[in-house]
Order: sequence, then structure tokens, then C-alpha cells
Amino acid sequence: MLSFIKRVSKKTGLPPGSLIHVGEKKTEDVRIRVIDYDENEISERELASPDECLSYKDKNSVTWINIDGLHDVSVIRKMGDIFGLHPLVLEDIVNTGHRPKMDDFEDYIFITGSMLFYKEEAAEIVSEQFSLILGSNYVISFQEIEGDVFEPVRERLRKGKGRIRKRGPDYLAYSLMDAIVDGYFIVLEKMGEDIESLEEELMSDPKTETLNKIHYLKRELISLRKSVWPLREVISLLSRGETDLIKENTVIFIRDVYDHTIQVIDTIETYRDMVSGMLDVYLSSISNRMNEVMKVLTVIATIFIPLTFIAGIYGMNFKYMPELEWHWGYHLALSGMFVIGVIMYAWFRRKRFL
Amino acid sequence: MLSFIKRVSKKTGLPPGSLIHVGEKKTEDVRIRVIDYDENEISERELASPDECLSYKDKNSVTWINIDGLHDVSVIRKMGDIFGLHPLVLEDIVNTGHRPKMDDFEDYIFITGSMLFYKEEAAEIVSEQFSLILGSNYVISFQEIEGDVFEPVRERLRKGKGRIRKRGPDYLAYSLMDAIVDGYFIVLEKMGEDIESLEEELMSDPKTETLNKIHYLKRELISLRKSVWPLREVISLLSRGETDLIKENTVIFIRDVYDHTIQVIDTIETYRDMVSGMLDVYLSSISNRMNEVMKVLTVIATIFIPLTFIAGIYGMNFKYMPELEWHWGYHLALSGMFVIGVIMYAWFRRKRFL
Amino acid sequence: MLSFIKRVSKKTGLPPGSLIHVGEKKTEDVRIRVIDYDENEISERELASPDECLSYKDKNSVTWINIDGLHDVSVIRKMGDIFGLHPLVLEDIVNTGHRPKMDDFEDYIFITGSMLFYKEEAAEIVSEQFSLILGSNYVISFQEIEGDVFEPVRERLRKGKGRIRKRGPDYLAYSLMDAIVDGYFIVLEKMGEDIESLEEELMSDPKTETLNKIHYLKRELISLRKSVWPLREVISLLSRGETDLIKENTVIFIRDVYDHTIQVIDTIETYRDMVSGMLDVYLSSISNRMNEVMKVLTVIATIFIPLTFIAGIYGMNFKYMPELEWHWGYHLALSGMFVIGVIMYAWFRRKRFL
Amino acid sequence: MLSFIKRVSKKTGLPPGSLIHVGEKKTEDVRIRVIDYDENEISERELASPDECLSYKDKNSVTWINIDGLHDVSVIRKMGDIFGLHPLVLEDIVNTGHRPKMDDFEDYIFITGSMLFYKEEAAEIVSEQFSLILGSNYVISFQEIEGDVFEPVRERLRKGKGRIRKRGPDYLAYSLMDAIVDGYFIVLEKMGEDIESLEEELMSDPKTETLNKIHYLKRELISLRKSVWPLREVISLLSRGETDLIKENTVIFIRDVYDHTIQVIDTIETYRDMVSGMLDVYLSSISNRMNEVMKVLTVIATIFIPLTFIAGIYGMNFKYMPELEWHWGYHLALSGMFVIGVIMYAWFRRKRFL
Amino acid sequence: MLSFIKRVSKKTGLPPGSLIHVGEKKTEDVRIRVIDYDENEISERELASPDECLSYKDKNSVTWINIDGLHDVSVIRKMGDIFGLHPLVLEDIVNTGHRPKMDDFEDYIFITGSMLFYKEEAAEIVSEQFSLILGSNYVISFQEIEGDVFEPVRERLRKGKGRIRKRGPDYLAYSLMDAIVDGYFIVLEKMGEDIESLEEELMSDPKTETLNKIHYLKRELISLRKSVWPLREVISLLSRGETDLIKENTVIFIRDVYDHTIQVIDTIETYRDMVSGMLDVYLSSISNRMNEVMKVLTVIATIFIPLTFIAGIYGMNFKYMPELEWHWGYHLALSGMFVIGVIMYAWFRRKRFL
Repeated sequence: MLSFIKRVSKKTGLPPGSLIHVGEKKTEDVRIRVIDYDENEISERELASPDECLSYKDKNSVTWINIDGLHDVSVIRKMGDIFGLHPLVLEDIVNTGHRPKMDDFEDYIFITGSMLFYKEEAAEIVSEQFSLILGSNYVISFQEIEGDVFEPVRERLRKGKGRIRKRGPDYLAYSLMDAIVDGYFIVLEKMGEDIESLEEELMSDPKTETLNKIHYLKRELISLRKSVWPLREVISLLSRGETDLIKENTVIFIRDVYDHTIQVIDTIETYRDMVSGMLDVYLSSISNRMNEVMKVLTVIATIFIPLTFIAGIYGMNFKYMPELEWHWGYHLALSGMFVIGVIMYAWFRRKRFL
Repeated sequence: MLSFIKRVSKKTGLPPGSLIHVGEKKTEDVRIRVIDYDENEISERELASPDECLSYKDKNSVTWINIDGLHDVSVIRKMGDIFGLHPLVLEDIVNTGHRPKMDDFEDYIFITGSMLFYKEEAAEIVSEQFSLILGSNYVISFQEIEGDVFEPVRERLRKGKGRIRKRGPDYLAYSLMDAIVDGYFIVLEKMGEDIESLEEELMSDPKTETLNKIHYLKRELISLRKSVWPLREVISLLSRGETDLIKENTVIFIRDVYDHTIQVIDTIETYRDMVSGMLDVYLSSISNRMNEVMKVLTVIATIFIPLTFIAGIYGMNFKYMPELEWHWGYHLALSGMFVIGVIMYAWFRRKRFL
Repeated sequence: MLSFIKRVSKKTGLPPGSLIHVGEKKTEDVRIRVIDYDENEISERELASPDECLSYKDKNSVTWINIDGLHDVSVIRKMGDIFGLHPLVLEDIVNTGHRPKMDDFEDYIFITGSMLFYKEEAAEIVSEQFSLILGSNYVISFQEIEGDVFEPVRERLRKGKGRIRKRGPDYLAYSLMDAIVDGYFIVLEKMGEDIESLEEELMSDPKTETLNKIHYLKRELISLRKSVWPLREVISLLSRGETDLIKENTVIFIRDVYDHTIQVIDTIETYRDMVSGMLDVYLSSISNRMNEVMKVLTVIATIFIPLTFIAGIYGMNFKYMPELEWHWGYHLALSGMFVIGVIMYAWFRRKRFL
Repeated sequence: MLSFIKRVSKKTGLPPGSLIHVGEKKTEDVRIRVIDYDENEISERELASPDECLSYKDKNSVTWINIDGLHDVSVIRKMGDIFGLHPLVLEDIVNTGHRPKMDDFEDYIFITGSMLFYKEEAAEIVSEQFSLILGSNYVISFQEIEGDVFEPVRERLRKGKGRIRKRGPDYLAYSLMDAIVDGYFIVLEKMGEDIESLEEELMSDPKTETLNKIHYLKRELISLRKSVWPLREVISLLSRGETDLIKENTVIFIRDVYDHTIQVIDTIETYRDMVSGMLDVYLSSISNRMNEVMKVLTVIATIFIPLTFIAGIYGMNFKYMPELEWHWGYHLALSGMFVIGVIMYAWFRRKRFL
Repeated sequence: MLSFIKRVSKKTGLPPGSLIHVGEKKTEDVRIRVIDYDENEISERELASPDECLSYKDKNSVTWINIDGLHDVSVIRKMGDIFGLHPLVLEDIVNTGHRPKMDDFEDYIFITGSMLFYKEEAAEIVSEQFSLILGSNYVISFQEIEGDVFEPVRERLRKGKGRIRKRGPDYLAYSLMDAIVDGYFIVLEKMGEDIESLEEELMSDPKTETLNKIHYLKRELISLRKSVWPLREVISLLSRGETDLIKENTVIFIRDVYDHTIQVIDTIETYRDMVSGMLDVYLSSISNRMNEVMKVLTVIATIFIPLTFIAGIYGMNFKYMPELEWHWGYHLALSGMFVIGVIMYAWFRRKRFL
């Protein structure tokens, strides 16, 4: 979010709708891939220039244009011209880090949000912004980088599995949203595993490092929550079916995605509760431990202080100290100290000081 | 919830409505039991195959089909085909761990949630997912395992006690919901007993283990709350009587179940307050105890330190120390120390340090 | 609430509307008292059997039937038969511990909740469940035990003071609700006094027992709040005047009761804030005190430790220790120690360690 | 609030609308002052008896009757008779401590709440209850004591400054409400000054007394908040302009008062945040200080303990201790101790223990 | 806010709409600048007196009058007369520190709020109140001081860049609001940098000063939040397009500003969470450190206390202490002490006390 703030503030003073890509340039080449299909046929191409999209605009088939890379502003502007997109929409597309939102412009719907996925090879969670344009016969998806959670949707399109080829672009948009929400589940699963291993660590051997990990998880959950809550609203708006672009029989599927989003939020809340609980456990276990240590140390000191006092007494140099003359005086003194020590120890035990 | 997340993420990439049972396989055999009744007659059978359900579909009597075990996806799909259930409904049925929800598909209502019951023999709380389909003349209930909270309903059906045989499937569905909510009460009673015994333990002899139990209860209550809150919404939706499947005179009974759900939620909140209070009491009692211990130990040390100092003085080896030569010097020194010790003790007492 | 849970779970498996009294049997005899009045006349009787109520059912005068004791289920069932009450209403009447609620069954209104009163002789707060049935020409009130907050209402009826004799049963029902809410005020006054005396105790001499009292008050306030909040909703529903049973000119009086309920809630919230504040004050005063004690003790120890060290030095047995030979060596050493002690004390003072 | 509770509970058992003044008797005489004006003329009188009000009832001019002192119930009842006020309104007027509220009785509006003002001479904040009756051609204001925030309004009336003389009683009522809310601002300013001086005290020299002051402020803010929140609702209701008694062109002024009330609430919230922050700062500064003290003391003790041990060694009486015979043994021992002490001190420093 | 309270309380007793500037006099001269433009022409002038505005009132072109400095009340009143502004609006304009609000007076809209900007040269955040009047063909903006965030808007007007010259005054007002919200982003960016550098400081070397900085940031965020929340409402009201003064095609731009405001609020919330987290980290790290120090010190003391005791034993002056006579007694004693010390150290290590 911080980075978004920085970027917006850089743009200050420009007229609204100015297209200046202010995100990180995450990929070298802008890639435009088109999948065009109807129930019977499917064709997949990579376009060299956005102008080629024009031919798909008025076709009867469903066209899915996917654009990877947002730094080449001219491409985005060209797309905007061809499909008649509002300048503010184009601005939102290139301004990565935007809050999830939906806007309904009668002939198309604009959706933006963040997409999370887990890169197996790098063992890291990648987050990027996506934008969707749903028109009467096309879907345009924008992403910052190549690599996404849409691969299974492409697979299904290619194989003609399920309903996907028989339905219109609204069903395609739903499928993409569904894939995005599924991506959250995978990330949550990853986090759940982290929480579980942290809990074990907490039980067996809590360290300062454990605390840092807990704080880190907590912050990650906060930021995740911040990006899912508005997404929930977006999908809720879609599921009300107030737009003609989304057909009656697709609404129930979108409601299903909505249910999943709720479940994501529930899980995040549960995780937050768990992490808070872990924090409490950590703090109280640390302070318990500390208290135990201090108690043991103080008990040791307390036992020896009176003994040292007795030794001090017989170390005095008075002329007339009868005990000093006794033959068994030394042994009596030692035994006395021993007895006192044992009694004190026993007393502390019984009082449950130890 | 964690487990649900894991399961969903395993399914990622499949088209919506794919029927893959991703829960634990909790029981060996899928059992299909049918109770078919009207005001006069009742028959109870166990079906070998889901196809036999077909014959009940258009009968005038009320049919209750109960299916134990969700791992055999073909059975679920078959049921879906016979009763015309939406693929997403079937998906929700087999995806155990789903958030409670209700969907109204004009010719049937779909309800899912979790069912809790207390297994006397094993002394453990069992949780499983249930799903209900309420149609115009049938109710289908799905559960993960055999053994449920529905036995009293079956008893009433068999004996023809009360209204149950005279009413339609909506009243049967209500009876099942009522039995499920009653199950929550039993589990809450169990928890209430645990809380009471924990409170006694807390008062008499708090241990670290007590803290763990409190944390455990707290977490259990959180998860219970998470599953009851959406159930409340589900029942509230049902009680509005907006569907033709639920008759006017059944609505008041559903509102009664709703009242019970509210009471369950109230009780959970009360328990949470109690458990939080217990946590506070535990922490402050532990820290109080620790403080007491440290105070006693420090007082002991503080009394002896000046005495040791006096002994140190008369242990010095100066040539001319007049007191050393006195005949009663030693006894005077001892008496002096004793007096000082008593004075300090008395002072600490009066200052309420002890 | 706990007790309610226990009772409900005992009933599990019975059909809805089963009348089994599951509360404590608080009184020996079921007493049925009837006050029948109009503007001119009033008669007061005690009935031997519920059947005698029948004669009042169609009279033009206003009839108030008050029933003390809920354990004789046959009486309740008989009343239900005579006045045509729904089985679920009867169930709610005998199930003590129910959450306050209101149900509008066109020809009568059912209200239930808890009634608090302060028994002067026993110096204890008594809580019992009440239920009211408001019909077109009668009010039936059910209570668990004899002794209630309704006596002033009876007095006013007998003396014909105020509006009460000129108005219908809706005004009577309002008067009863008003008496119940007034009962809350008395209990709150009692609690207010407890809080004030606790505060004084807290200021003058906080003990562990004080903490227990605070925790006890806190919990009592939570449970009070739990029973008043839904009562507020009940009265709010009544004050909307959506039922014909409550006449236009009574609605303003009910709104007055509503205002009082809000005031009760406000007072409870204020008390909760005060009690929380007391808890904070208690904890910080205890920890302050503890800190003071530890500081004093540590300062004492810290002053003597260097002095003991000096004594230790001159207790060493080196052959050549010139100071030991000096005639005033001993006195110099003592003076030195004294000076060091004073300087340390002064330094601690100036540094505000003491 | 407590006092209100006490008073209400004293009235328990009386019929609603019973006029028994249960507040403190704050002033000796009931004073009835009348200001009667239109655009051209103004007359100001003090009435001997409420009956004289009758003559103003049907005059065309605007009449403002102000009554100081509520303990003479007969006066209030007389006013009620003359202006046709509902018994519950009269009850609310004499029951001081009532929650702010508004009631619309078609021919008049009743408003009650608390009025705060700062008495310069006594340097104290005075709080009393006010009630306003706004009729078609009159405003009646009731207060517990003489002395109020209305003087500037009277001044403006007398001098004919601004709109006030040209407008009707609704504008007068607005002016009175405005004066009351302005009174809150003055009190808030006073509190703001207290907060600022407390903050300085907190920075320069925090004492236990500071803590008490913070707790006192916190509680005062809570009680202030409790009386302003419902006032906000009252003014919001008025500003909706749903009554004919408030003319179109006065509504915008009432909305201005509403804005001021919001600002009062905002300020109270800000103050609460500030006071909470001060509490945190106080507690952490106290605990920091305590920690510093304990650390210094422990470091002193820890440095001397090993040195005392060394002195102890050379105080042992073994026959053959070569060091004791050395000529420089004593000086070596002293130097050794000094060096050890310095090293420990340096080590503690470097480790930032000091 | 405090300062606003002070100012309002100074005005107490004046009739509403009294124009007395009660803010700080932030600038010497009142400057009136006019930019008058249509699609083809633009003229920019500085007016000597407000009367000159009259000529712009009925021109067809769009006029933007910007007034710097609010202390000369006669100017504000003159403007009010010319453009027919309501007295309360004028009062709100000169009363700096007002809560952001919007009022719709059919022929003009009044908007007020606070404007933040970062003065590069002084390295400080400046906050001042702005007010906007949007009429059918003019926009009037009032500010306390010269220097603002509107410069880029003027630039765009002059250069005729973008849509701004082709649109009406509503678009101009939007551009100004947009510039104001952009100003918040810049301030947030500044704060974000402060947070980042504070976090580094917290990690590397936390000091008491760090705590103060955290508290300061926290308070700044609270006050920022207080001024943005009502601004959000204001813009939300504008974006509903319920007024004729804002044209259909401008509404979408206002909704964009609304989105930005939400993002500002989100960022503030995130910052608050981060700052709270930092506070927790600080406190726990400080207390951890303190605990570590105390533990080390106590361990040192605990190791030496038993050793000192042994030295004390052999310092006793008993006649018959066989060990004293042994030739190697001294060395044995020393070795024994060494061994005991090492064992204790090792034990503490293994027990993880160190």
C-alpha cells in the first residue's frame, strides 16, 4: 500500500486519466494473448500489436484477450481506444496497488483487485494486480507479470471440459474470478502450514525469533485482509445480477465465488485469532519462564544469606566467645548451618516457592 | 476450517461442480435409509442403490432419504440426477467443512451446516457436516458418518407422536434442524461443566496446565461461534417464510428454532466472557503469587544483610577495637543483632511489606 | 443461562410443545389469583382450579389472572386450552431461563422475560421468569414463585387511583411491564451502592478480596445486561403499536417504559465502565505498592552491600595492613562506613529512588 | 446517573404521571419570567403565579416563559393544565437526571437534556436539567436553578439584534438550543486546558496524583459523552423538519446546531484518545523509571558481591596462605579488587546494562 | 480541534451568522485572484476589491475566484452579498478548524474541509482550512494563507491541457477536490517514510525517544483520520449526483476522488496498525532487554553468594578447625570454590537461565 501511495504522489498535478505507468516494471515484454472460442471452435494466438484486437471486437465468438505487462502505456491506451474504455479505467489499470473495485459502465464492467499465487520454484508468494474488462462478447484481462492462476481456465477452454465453452463471456469472467479466489485458498493453506509449524515451535522451544515470526504473520494477515474485504464487496455487487452483461444462469456461480470469498475472510479471521492467541501464549510463557528463573535464583540467595550471617558471627574477633573454644564448636556450627539450610529449603518447598 | 482450506486448494483448477470428495473418508459403506410416511402409514427401508429412490420421487407421501457417507461420489451424483439438483449443490455436499449456508432453488431448498453430538461411549464431541434438501414431498439428508442427532425424530415418526406424521416435509425438515440445534445445547452443557470444573481448579490450585485448558476452551468456543453465526442467518432466512416450500404454520416452529439458535449464541458469548474472565483471574493470581514469593524472599534477605554487616565489623582485624576486649562484648553484639532483626521485622510488618 | 442450557438438553428428543417443567420447583402450591375490574367495580378472588377461568373469558370487564408456580404442568396446559394458546407459548412459559421475547399471535400477545426484585428481609436479589399474555379483555401473568413487583399495581387497582381502572387490559399490561422495569431500577440502585462502597474500600485499603468482589460485580453486570438487551427489543416492538391489542393512547406510555429500559441499559454500561476502571485502578495500585516495597528493600540491601565489603576488607588476614595498626583505625573505618552510608542514602534520595 | 436511579427507585409503585419532585431542591423560590415580543415590541415581566400565563396563551406575539426551580410541583401541574401538556411530559420535567429526549405531540414539542455551564466565581462546572416546550406561539423553558446560558439570548431579544425578533418561537427554541450547545463548548475548552496542563505535568514530573487526575478526567469524559450522544439524536430529529412547528427556514439553523453537536462529540472522542494516550504514557514511564532504579541498584550490588567474596577469601584463617605473608599482599588485593570493579563496571556499560 | 473549541467559545453569545474571524491571522493581505475561461479564451487577474467580482457573476464563461486570507471579514461579507450566500455559510468560512462538511443550497453548493500540503523549503506539513462555493457558472475558493495545492490546476487551465477548459465549473470544483486529496497522498508518503525510518531505528537501537516518536505519529494519525473521515462523507454525498450543479459526466470523476479518499483512509488504518504493532514490539523488546539484564545480574550474584559463604566458614575463629591446619587447605578451598562456581554456571546454562 505504501508503494501505491508513493506512486500516486509522483503523479500529483497531472490531469485525471493521464496514463503514466508508475508501478515497478516487472516484465520486459508486453505480451498479448488471445483465445477466441465458441462451442465448436477455439483458436489461440499471440498478437504482435494491440491493433489486431480490432478484428475480434465484433465477432460473435467469445474473445479473451490477456495482456501481461503494464509498463508500455501506449498498448493500454490503444486497447482503450479500440474498446471504448473510459480514461479513468485505463488510469486504474496502470496504477498498480489500487484498492479492489468494480465499476459498471453499461457496455462493459471493470473489475480490479489483487491476485496471489504461490511460485513453487521460488517458494514465495507473488502478488500482482489484475484488471478485468467484461464486455458483451469479450473479456480483457490485464496483469503485471507473466505467470498467473489462469492456466487451469485455459486448459478447460482448450479441452472443452465442463460448461465453459458453451457459455458466454460472463461465465469466462466468473471462471477467472474463481481462479483468483482459489489462488487465495492456496496462499492461505501455505500460511496455515506456517501457523502450525510456528505453534509447534512455540510449544517446544520459544525464542525471540519466534516472536518476530508471529509479528510477521500478523502483519501479513492484516494486509491480506485489507485486500480481500473490498474484493468481497466487488463480488457481492456482481452477484446481485443488476447488469445485463451477466446472465441469470451465471449469477448462481458468482454467488458460489462469493461464498468462497466469505470463507477466505472467515479463515483469515480465524488465523488472526490463532496468531493473537499465539502471541498471548508466547508472552505469558516467556514471562512465566523469567519468573521461574528469578524465583530459583532468589531462593538460592535467600538460603545462603542467613548461613553466611552465621559464618560472619563466628568470624568476629571478640576476646570472649565461648563457642570458639569448644572442641566440637566448628562441627556444631557446620551442622547447625546445614540443618538451617535444609529447614529453609523444606519450608520453601512446602510453601510452593520452588 | 484449516482442513477445508487444504481440501479446496487440492481441487484448484477443476471446473466448478466437479464432484471429488476431498474430506476424510469417515465411514466404510454408504448407507441409504428411507422413511416414507403419511398420517396413517409408515415404512422404513434401507436401499441398496440410489436408483431405488426414483420410485419415491412422485409419491404423495413424505419421503425422508438419509445418506450416511459422502466419499462415494457416484451415489451423490446419482441423487443429483434423480432429484434435479444443481451441480454446485452437489459440490457443496461433498466438500465437507463448508460454511453453513442456505440456497433457495425454487423447487427445492438446500441447507448445509455442521452437526455436533456428544458420543457418550468415547466421551468426545463429534462434529460432522450435514446437508438437507427440502423438496415438495421429500427431504434428503446427507451426513459424513453414521450416528447422528436424528434418532429422536425417527422415534417420533415411528410412534406417530405429536404433529410430525400429520405435517409435510417442511415440518420434517424443521424437526431435523431442531434436533441439530438441540445437539448444540448438549455440547454447550458439556462445555459448561468443563468451565465449572476449570473454575474450581482455578480457585483451589491454578497450574500451568490450567492455563492450557483455558486457552483450549477459548479456541473451541471461537470455532463453535464461527459455525453457529452463519447457521443463525440460515435459519433466519428460512423463518421469513419467503418460499412456498415452507408452509405458513411451520414458520412459527422455525422461528422457535431461531430463538434457540440465538440462545446458543448468547450462551457462547457468555462462556467467552467467562473464559476471558478466568484468564484474567489466572494471570493476576499467578502474578500475585509470584510477587508474594519475591517479597518474602527479599524481606528475608533484607533483614539479614545489615546483621551480616555488623558481624563483618567485629570480624575486622584492627589492633584497637575496644568492644572486642569487653567481657560481654560478644553477647552484647548478638543481642544487638537480635534486637535489630526484630525491629526490622516489626517495621516491615507495620508497613505491610509482609 | 447455564441452568437453562442444562434444562433444554434434558428435554432433547421430545416433540416441540412438550410440556415438561424443567426448572427448579420453587414453590409448593400453584396459586391462581384473579382480579376482575371495570371503571366502577372490582372483585378479587383466588381460584381453586384453572377451569374457573372460563367464566372470565367472555366478560366485558378486564380480567387479570396471575399464576404463581409453574411446576404443575396440567394447570398451564388447562390455561392454554381455555385461552387457545399455541403449544410453543406454553413450552416457553414453563421453560424458565428463556431469553426475553415477544410473539404476536393476532388474538393475543405473548411476552416473556426476567423479573428482578430485592427481598428486603433476606437482603438478596431474587430473579425469576415472568410471562404475560395480553388478550382482548384479559391479561394472564405467570411467575415461578409468589412475591413479586406487581403489588403496587394491585394497590392502584384496588384504590382506583389514576387511569388504571378506566383503561383496558393493554394499560394493565403496560403497568405490569412498568413495574418490572422499576424493579430493575431498584436492583441497580443496590448495585450502585455496592459499587460506591467498593470504591471506598479500593481507595482506603485494597485487598485480594476486593478484586474478587470487583470480578463478581463485573460478571453480575454482564448477566444483567444479557437479560435487559432483549427486553429492550421486546418493548421497542410493543411501542411501535403495530397490533390492535394495544390502543393508540397506551402506546405513549409504553414508549415511556422503553425510555426507562434505555436508561437501565445506560446505567449498566456506566457501571461496567466504572467497574472496569476500578479493576485498572486496583491492578495498578497493587503493582505500584509491590514496586514500592521492592524498591525500599533493594535500596536497603544496596546501601549495606558496599559497607559489608569494607568490613570484609579489614577482616582480611594480611600480615602487613598498615591501617590495622593505627590507633584510630577502627574508629576511622566506622566513620568512613557511616559517611558512605549517608552519602548513598542522600544520593538515592536526590535521584528519587526512595 | 446514579442519583437518577435512586430517585426513580423512590417513586416505584406510584402511577405513571405522578408529579413528585425527586431531585435535589436546588433553589428556594420558583421564579416565572416572561418575555413577550414581536418584531416591534418587547415586554419583560416576572409572574407571581402560573395562572397569569393564561393571558399569553392566545396572543399573537411570541411568548417565552422561563421557570427556575422544579421543586414546587403545583406550579408545574398548573402549567401543564394551562398549556395542555401530557402527564408523562410533566413527570419527565420534574424527574431531573433524565436521558436527553424529544417527543413530538402534534401541538407542541417536548425537549429535555442537560445544560452545562461554567460558573466563573466558583470555578466549577454546573450541570442542570433543562426542558423546552415549543408551541405554536410560545416557548416554555424549565430549569432546576437560576443562572443559565440563556442570558445572551435575552440580550439579543432586548436589543432586537439579528433575526431573532422577526422570527417565530421555533427560532427562539433554536436560539436556546444553540446557547446550550455553546455551553458545552465552554466546558470542553475548560477540560482542554486541564488536559494540556496535565500533559505538561506528565512530561515534567509524573506523580500518583497525576494518575488520579487522569482517571478523573477519563470518567468525566465518559459521563459527558453519555449526555451528548442522545442530545445529538434529539437535534437530528428536530433538523429533519418533520413537524409543522418548525418552519422551513429555521431548519438550516438547527442543522447548524447539529453540526456543532457533532463537533462536540468529535472533540470528546479526541479528548478520550488523548487521555487514554496519557494513561499509557504514564504507566510506561512509571514502569520504565522503576526498571531503571532496579537496574542501577542491582548493578551496584552485582559489582560489590564478587569483591566481598575476594575479601572473604583473604579473611579465611588457613595456616598456610602464602599471599598473606607477602609484603604488598594487601595492596595487591586492594588493587585487584579495584581493577575487577572497574572491569565489571566497564563491561556493564558496554553491554548497556547501565 | 482544541483551537477550534477555544475560538467557538469566544464567540458565544453572538447571534448566529455573526462574522468575526476567530482564527489565527495567518497572512497580511487578502488576495483575490480571478481566472476566467472558456474553451477558447482565458484571462487571469488580481482584483483590488471584492466588488469587481460582480462583473463575473452573470458571464457565460467559467469564473474561478480564489481568496487567500480570511481575517478581513468585510471581504467575506461582500462576497456573500454579491453571490447571495447564506449567513451561516459565511460564518463557516471564517471559522477555521471546522469539521469537513457539505451543504447543498439549490443555487450553490458549499464544501469545507482541511487541505494539507508539504512545504519543501520548511520541511513541514502545513494544514489550513479551505472552502469551496460551486455555483452555476463560478467556483469560489477560500483559503487561510497563500500557497496551496491548486497550482497544478492553474497550470492545466493556462495550458488548456486535458478536458478542464472544455468543461464547466463542476469539473473545476472536482479538479480542486482532486488536488486536495492528492495533497493527502503526499503527506501520507512523508509519514510512510517516517514510519519506515522509525522501524529501522526500532530494530537497530530502540531508545526512549523512539517511544516518543511512536506516540507522536500515533496522535498525528488519529488527527489525520478525524479530518479525512468526514471528508469521505462529503465526497460521497457529491458523488451521488443528486444536485443539478454537478453534471452527469462529472460524477464519474468525483467517484474517482471518492475511491482515492477511501484509499487514503485505508492507508491511515494500515499505518495505525503498523504504529500499534511498533508500540507492542518496542514495549516487549524493552521488557525483554530489562529481563535479560536482571537475569544476568541475578545469576552473577547467585553464583558468588555460596562462594562467599564458604569463605565465611573458613573465616570463623573456632579453635579446632582441622582444615585450617592442612598444608594444602587454602588451595583446596580455592579449588573447591572454583569447582562449585563452574558447576553452578554449567547448571544455569543447561537450565537455560543464561
